[in-house]
Amino acid sequence: MDRIPILRMGQFLLVTIQVDLYDRLALDLEADIVKMVNKTGARGVLIDISAVSIVDSFMGRIIGNIGVMSKLLDAETVVVGMQPAVAITLVELGLPLKGVYTALNVDKGMDLLRSIIQDDVDTADTDDDDDNIAE
Amino acid sequence: MDRIPILRMGQFLLVTIQVDLYDRLALDLEADIVKMVNKTGARGVLIDISAVSIVDSFMGRIIGNIGVMSKLLDAETVVVGMQPAVAITLVELGLPLKGVYTALNVDKGMDLLRSIIQDDVDTADTDDDDDNIAE
Repeated sequence: MDRIPILRMGQFLLVTIQVDLYDRLALDLEADIVKMVNKTGARGVLIDISAVSIVDSFMGRIIGNIGVMSKLLDAETVVVGMQPAVAITLVELGLPLKGVYTALNVDKGMDLLRSIIQDDVDTADTDDDDDNIAE
Repeated sequence: MDRIPILRMGQFLLVTIQVDLYDRLALDLEADIVKMVNKTGARGVLIDISAVSIVDSFMGRIIGNIGVMSKLLDAETVVVGMQPAVAITLVELGLPLKGVYTALNVDKGMDLLRSIIQDDVDTADTDDDDDNIAE
């Protein structure tokens, strides 16, 4: 399989990472997600990494990039299902996953996305909404 | 990665198949899904095979098994995102995916699951509900 599928679920996109993100695959995923956000007008991207047990600086950077790129197209990114060991590794690597939100599982990630979008609608002020996110 | 992750989304489970289902992995997936249905009380299982471009009789049988096993635990199975070539191959192999529903994409699969569950509630008669499904 040479592409990671991106599933559309209403106004969100869901990506499940099950394989090691080697360079070409990761860059393709980045491009595919941004194209898909543009095409579908999705408001949120959920990235499930529950099957990922090893993370490196490259993967951390790619996830960060996806978050920033999606944000430019008005979609928020939530990383869900992170294993404890991965969280430890990310902090030890000095990669705090800038630009993305995190949640424990897909259900909670969807709730978070819905509340973020709702907040955007309520305040009509997306640019200053950076209380939980590092730009 | 030695396990295919099963994501819980409300009362449904979502499985995205991105890798070749060799024997061990497929049998593990079968067991994991049934355990997860039992543990979560899920009412539906969505299996996304949009990344699958080659299908064989083994994979067809595994998907059929998952459908029948889930049904025994009162969960319906919907296969979504099938590529046209896969549909052609399945018919040529004489594998009509017994026991599972199919839908074009995840959104439509979720709608289908909701309507099946709703029908079950309406008629309170799940056992005779076999109009579109081969037992």
